[in-house]
Amino acid sequence: MTLRSTTLGDVLREHRRSWPRQVAIVCGDARLRYPELDDRVSKLASVLRARGIEAAGRVLWLGQGCHRFIETWLAVAKLGGVVCPVNWRQSASELAFVLHDFAPRVVLWQDEELGEVVREARALAGGDAEGASWIQHDGRGDDGYEALLERAAAADLDLEVDASSPVLCMYTAAFEGKPRGALLSHDALLVQALVNARYRDIDSTYVYLNSGPLFHMATFMFTAATFLAAGTNVMTRRADPERICRLIHDERCTGAFLMPPTIAEIARLNARGDYDLESLRAYAASPEWNAMVTLDTTPAGRAPGGYGQTEVTGLLTLGALGGRPIPLAQVRIVDGEGREVAPGEIGEIVVRGPTVMNGYLGGAAPGAWHHTNDLGRREEDGAITFVGPMARLIKSGAENVYPAEVEACLRAHPAVAACAVIGVPDARWGQSVLAIVVLRPGLAAAVDELVEHCRARIASYKKPRYVEYVEALPRRGHGVDYEALERRFGTTRGGAT
Amino acid sequence: MTLRSTTLGDVLREHRRSWPRQVAIVCGDARLRYPELDDRVSKLASVLRARGIEAAGRVLWLGQGCHRFIETWLAVAKLGGVVCPVNWRQSASELAFVLHDFAPRVVLWQDEELGEVVREARALAGGDAEGASWIQHDGRGDDGYEALLERAAAADLDLEVDASSPVLCMYTAAFEGKPRGALLSHDALLVQALVNARYRDIDSTYVYLNSGPLFHMATFMFTAATFLAAGTNVMTRRADPERICRLIHDERCTGAFLMPPTIAEIARLNARGDYDLESLRAYAASPEWNAMVTLDTTPAGRAPGGYGQTEVTGLLTLGALGGRPIPLAQVRIVDGEGREVAPGEIGEIVVRGPTVMNGYLGGAAPGAWHHTNDLGRREEDGAITFVGPMARLIKSGAENVYPAEVEACLRAHPAVAACAVIGVPDARWGQSVLAIVVLRPGLAAAVDELVEHCRARIASYKKPRYVEYVEALPRRGHGVDYEALERRFGTTRGGAT
Repeated sequence: MTLRSTTLGDVLREHRRSWPRQVAIVCGDARLRYPELDDRVSKLASVLRARGIEAAGRVLWLGQGCHRFIETWLAVAKLGGVVCPVNWRQSASELAFVLHDFAPRVVLWQDEELGEVVREARALAGGDAEGASWIQHDGRGDDGYEALLERAAAADLDLEVDASSPVLCMYTAAFEGKPRGALLSHDALLVQALVNARYRDIDSTYVYLNSGPLFHMATFMFTAATFLAAGTNVMTRRADPERICRLIHDERCTGAFLMPPTIAEIARLNARGDYDLESLRAYAASPEWNAMVTLDTTPAGRAPGGYGQTEVTGLLTLGALGGRPIPLAQVRIVDGEGREVAPGEIGEIVVRGPTVMNGYLGGAAPGAWHHTNDLGRREEDGAITFVGPMARLIKSGAENVYPAEVEACLRAHPAVAACAVIGVPDARWGQSVLAIVVLRPGLAAAVDELVEHCRARIASYKKPRYVEYVEALPRRGHGVDYEALERRFGTTRGGAT
Repeated sequence: MTLRSTTLGDVLREHRRSWPRQVAIVCGDARLRYPELDDRVSKLASVLRARGIEAAGRVLWLGQGCHRFIETWLAVAKLGGVVCPVNWRQSASELAFVLHDFAPRVVLWQDEELGEVVREARALAGGDAEGASWIQHDGRGDDGYEALLERAAAADLDLEVDASSPVLCMYTAAFEGKPRGALLSHDALLVQALVNARYRDIDSTYVYLNSGPLFHMATFMFTAATFLAAGTNVMTRRADPERICRLIHDERCTGAFLMPPTIAEIARLNARGDYDLESLRAYAASPEWNAMVTLDTTPAGRAPGGYGQTEVTGLLTLGALGGRPIPLAQVRIVDGEGREVAPGEIGEIVVRGPTVMNGYLGGAAPGAWHHTNDLGRREEDGAITFVGPMARLIKSGAENVYPAEVEACLRAHPAVAACAVIGVPDARWGQSVLAIVVLRPGLAAAVDELVEHCRARIASYKKPRYVEYVEALPRRGHGVDYEALERRFGTTRGGAT
């Protein structure tokens, strides 16, 4: 099958020939052209192989953003193995869980900044950690990364690797308290990269500042697309606004992963124009920001957004496609029995296609469709609307009620500014539906009115039985703090039934 | 594997959901939206299945451009079969060869314009033709295409189809006198479509006029890309300039397959601006033409060209990539033993990747690399230069001399305007190298000088032994008429040794 498949290693082999002068990676003082990158990757592959990494072998990256992570990813790809860039912001016990769950054969770890938590995690993991071979990627000694590379053979082993096999493990989906490792194949990363490149105009002139976390698909999608396009990935260990400005200025970066607070900080920091950020294609924000960057006029820049998840290698639908699925993806909205529901009806979003994961680490083999555990609706024009996660579930009688669906219905009422739906104990039905509602200033909606609004639009068993009015919903991170709501309303209301 | 693969049938199933209002095909009076197209395709699939088409089943399209060809392609795709759009410009005996070689189970044929040659071919093919079930696609009777569809079940059979299996057979590569059927998979067509769409900005607003032959990849690449992007394919049975103008005007076509002579004719025909052709994105030609269309500013429009062949589903390298391979393709330049040669050296172009064919119909299983039978060179910047076909070969001693390579070398001499290289009989070596040279006006280059020029640049056994000077080379089609040169020089020179 190798005649018609292309792995990440094959892409690198082609790039060294097709783009010999192109800078692949910039990281601190390191500037690697594609041939140099390929040589270093081949050396690292032979180091990893000597430590037992072969097909399906697992390597953990316990470090921050660095060119050595890109090298590790590609060396593991050449060996047919799987690399996991772990979330280094986690606590020692969370890292110990990953050491146990991923059970890596080799760990590449970083002493600077992370040394203490890594040592603690290693001690906590005990045997799970000591079964692995540990390489300090920022170590300067004889057994550090650079010393090992220096002594390694430079020949490309050119092993046969199945492009449909997993190469990347990303922890996500902590539905049941613990995260699960989603396994993504060469094919999935490459098809997503091809699609992403199309809607972002990512080509060999693209210079991507890896200022987001590499353990998150929202950044890594771009890292991979830049690599496939033979562009330049600029790495940074830390993504503080000053360093971001300096790197964009110095490397003429055209893309970067930036969240709104960072954008606001940069706009303040660069108010006097100390840094030239004009090379950066970015979304519009404040007038000051807009004046210092180039507004992104690519299809995805003009119509941002989309629905996605790590399990489908990032974005599944695109604003640039009017909220429709990316090319080659297949999407259905299904009911609890897996039957497709009509446009306009809410059901679970299920997916097939080349960007779907191979499954969760240690999980059952996936079926014919990947179940996203997210609720969605197919609009009349074919677009997919994300309604909310299915993870929170109210059991009322024999029926499943998804709070996200009830919330979407309530939000469509003109007087409702925000709302949250939780289950409260019910002697007869097990649980009943309680809606906590924030009204718009100056507008009113009585309990009966809201209940009737829902009865007219969704199945009767889904309508709220109780409604509470509050001034504001408690927040946690980007979302509603449902646990706080449950503590406040869950038991009292239940008692009142 | 279906979880992560997407077939052409799957794309159509998704489009009916994601693009329910989008016009998929315009053909005469027929205007089919994606859901209607999918319904008709499902009906045709059940008709073809009843006539014995299942996985790997072969269907021949013996007709001109028509929406029914697109339906046939997609219905065959849903069944896991293979469709061949035959070159209807061929003679009856050439068509009879295809009937024999492709051995279709079902033939869809056209009476209008082609009836006579089809009947003759059918008679010539005898048993090879009569083993097939014949459906007249433009037939109005009870057994015509539309009547069969009307009676067919509309349900989508939704059979399991392997996306890596062949779905399209294109005759090409008549190296040994007879053409061979290149088998292209769902994956190959879809990856090529994704890549083509990227460099041509083909999206759902794209309206492609299928004015080139559908039995040629140069047209079909765009047909498939338009389909994958949920754009509109406009069909035409005949591609005369008047009809092309009318269709571009009426359907606001954004793309069309047009050769330079047709462009010149259209510019003349539309000199008074009777037709509004402004929707068409086209390459620059005459000032009159440029004024009536929109100049193509897509990456492929700004830098046209590239090297390709049917066996790799169309283009392999792109001008838009500076002559480098398309994403996911792997290219090597190799010597006669399959060893990679250094940049700057000429060798055979070999390819791997998802757009490579599954093999020739009835041919041996392909090896790890597809051999293009074309000579090329990797430039210092990574670009691939096409040098010429390997098909013509001079055997000198134990060595193979490719005329295309010697010609490329001679053309690099400043005094050489054009040249052709042929083999002439040689008592000792079997064949010797004869160069036929056209000098640039006012410049001279003696035989010794040209021979030395080659000796310094290519292997000694490849340098010309003889040089003849002519005013102009005889032409045949787009190329040199080598047979005429062989008649004129081949024997006399050989005798003179």
